[in-house]
Amino acid sequence: MGVENLPRTLEFSRRTDGEGINRLWMSIVDQRLLPDECRIVGLSTYEMVVDAIKSLAVRGAPAIGVAGAGAIALWAVNQANCVTLDAYRHELAVVAEAVSTARPTAVNLTWGVNRVLREIERVLTDGGAAAAAVAAEACVREMAAEDEARNRAIGAYGARLLGAESRVLTHCNAGSLATVFYGTALGVIYAAHEQGCISHVYCNETRPVGQGVRLTAWELSRAGIPCTVQCDSMAAMLMKQGLIDAVIVGADRICANGDTANKIGTYQLAIAADYHRIPFYVAAPTSTIDTSLPAGNRIPIEFRDAREVTRFEHFKPHVYNPAFDVTPASLINGIITEKGIIRPIWRENGSFFNLRDLSRISPI
Amino acid sequence: MGVENLPRTLEFSRRTDGEGINRLWMSIVDQRLLPDECRIVGLSTYEMVVDAIKSLAVRGAPAIGVAGAGAIALWAVNQANCVTLDAYRHELAVVAEAVSTARPTAVNLTWGVNRVLREIERVLTDGGAAAAAVAAEACVREMAAEDEARNRAIGAYGARLLGAESRVLTHCNAGSLATVFYGTALGVIYAAHEQGCISHVYCNETRPVGQGVRLTAWELSRAGIPCTVQCDSMAAMLMKQGLIDAVIVGADRICANGDTANKIGTYQLAIAADYHRIPFYVAAPTSTIDTSLPAGNRIPIEFRDAREVTRFEHFKPHVYNPAFDVTPASLINGIITEKGIIRPIWRENGSFFNLRDLSRISPI
Repeated sequence: MGVENLPRTLEFSRRTDGEGINRLWMSIVDQRLLPDECRIVGLSTYEMVVDAIKSLAVRGAPAIGVAGAGAIALWAVNQANCVTLDAYRHELAVVAEAVSTARPTAVNLTWGVNRVLREIERVLTDGGAAAAAVAAEACVREMAAEDEARNRAIGAYGARLLGAESRVLTHCNAGSLATVFYGTALGVIYAAHEQGCISHVYCNETRPVGQGVRLTAWELSRAGIPCTVQCDSMAAMLMKQGLIDAVIVGADRICANGDTANKIGTYQLAIAADYHRIPFYVAAPTSTIDTSLPAGNRIPIEFRDAREVTRFEHFKPHVYNPAFDVTPASLINGIITEKGIIRPIWRENGSFFNLRDLSRISPI
Repeated sequence: MGVENLPRTLEFSRRTDGEGINRLWMSIVDQRLLPDECRIVGLSTYEMVVDAIKSLAVRGAPAIGVAGAGAIALWAVNQANCVTLDAYRHELAVVAEAVSTARPTAVNLTWGVNRVLREIERVLTDGGAAAAAVAAEACVREMAAEDEARNRAIGAYGARLLGAESRVLTHCNAGSLATVFYGTALGVIYAAHEQGCISHVYCNETRPVGQGVRLTAWELSRAGIPCTVQCDSMAAMLMKQGLIDAVIVGADRICANGDTANKIGTYQLAIAADYHRIPFYVAAPTSTIDTSLPAGNRIPIEFRDAREVTRFEHFKPHVYNPAFDVTPASLINGIITEKGIIRPIWRENGSFFNLRDLSRISPI
């Protein structure tokens, strides 16, 4: 039992196909099939990755950051075939645009794409497409390794916030499945569990896509952590009954003032936690922080298809289906990053943190 | 367009069957089939009514109050066959117990059963089973007629709370389908709409059974009122965006201090409304008020089957599935009854209202 029982969500490998061509592959757990089937699928083109991101086969801000970078690497290694550097740069820009816009809310996607683009550009002029392919592959393999290390650091910091016998509520899946391995919000829970500090985890179902019931509860069960699923609207009743000691969620984008975009329902949950005076924490790598946006009202929110919510045969009601909402910094008691915990100071100076603070987040 | 387009949820009629026996029937809209099919089914025994209540074919506190009374009347008219009054009273007590306990939270069920029991007892000693049958049938027909009149009064009072172009959010179905006809929370919306005061209604999906998307959105659409469905966790985002002017919900039981049990999710919604300073109203007949309970922590809460929440083929997580929660009076801005609107006075004297106030609720 434990996290070692979980599959790696995303992995890079080399395989030689039937035609004798050695290709770079990205393997992902197809999360559309969970919890009834845990199937690993291989992707070898950037278009396959874009489809996987759009269809939520791979999801979770940290995972799609690495997947987005991986898409560029798959193109650079397996697909790029340009006569001139100008043509290469032009096609790369088209590919990068297609990958970056596969989903709009998580800033990690752009972050991942930009990182591998910089690596390619660093070697392209002197080394050409071959050197770019090597650099891109090395970059994404490094990003995947870093992701796990970062999550373990987030877990270690976050676990310090939880007392013995903690009962934690979480929303959506900010677990190992939302990252390369280990998870952010669930990373905190795994780290605390290893220290014997978790008594129970309550998983919000997370309508409409059900990441909480399909992914988080499955992942926790597989790791041997006792958990219960409830509908999203039941969280306040659990809090009222004194069953919740802390709420921990992930994030898709954190603004310069600490306002945080995360899976729809997070904002309502934070309001309920505030009403019951239960601490509400966000766990996310610093790559989730977008200091270019001063406040949450500037975060683009993805609206998704009505059929995610309801599919009656005859009756087709009008549906409001935002995939994310924004929780103001005033409702957040701490942002747990791989560099330490950012504490709320907004009451004093009107903002949660700022660009200068970021470079000197100090471990608590 | 309008409420006249809606089916009557519950009706009593006399029909002669193939064997020439004239029976009392209770017709109900089978709400398990909505929104794709609006089928009326006939019930002629109390066991059929108990099944219908337990399986949610008929639901909604006011409707199950009349349905519960109807179950007793069906027994008295169609089934009772006892040699002595003692045997009659004994069997009636067994029947009444089975009906009263079909569901635990709504006080209206007990209220409805007790009312028809009193009518039967009033005539039983002198008139016997035949007189009891006549009295029971008259009683339930009167209750059904009263229910609609009461809802129209609730609607008229509640409409005064809404300004022009109101955008109202509601949870679950406290509509015509939850009553004999017209509805309580939706009764307010129908009355306000007749006065041109409703611009839009937002319907919470209402997990896990989906009364909001299956019943409320269907009912409003059929009545020609523009509406949108959202997942329960999205309500706070709608409020944040300034799209909601008022929240109106029904009730399953209201305690002496104003604490209100209603469909699970109501409490979390009331907290979100309070955070956004949006008025939160409860619409319910006075039969929903249970002055025998001083406060909400005494209300029995029904827990239902895990399969309502999730039915995976292999993965069977532990599920927390309360059907109701309790909203404290401190989060309620008014209780709209057929006798007038009970305003919050709890801040002054520590309780919302009390038994003595109830008899003199004055129209606003």
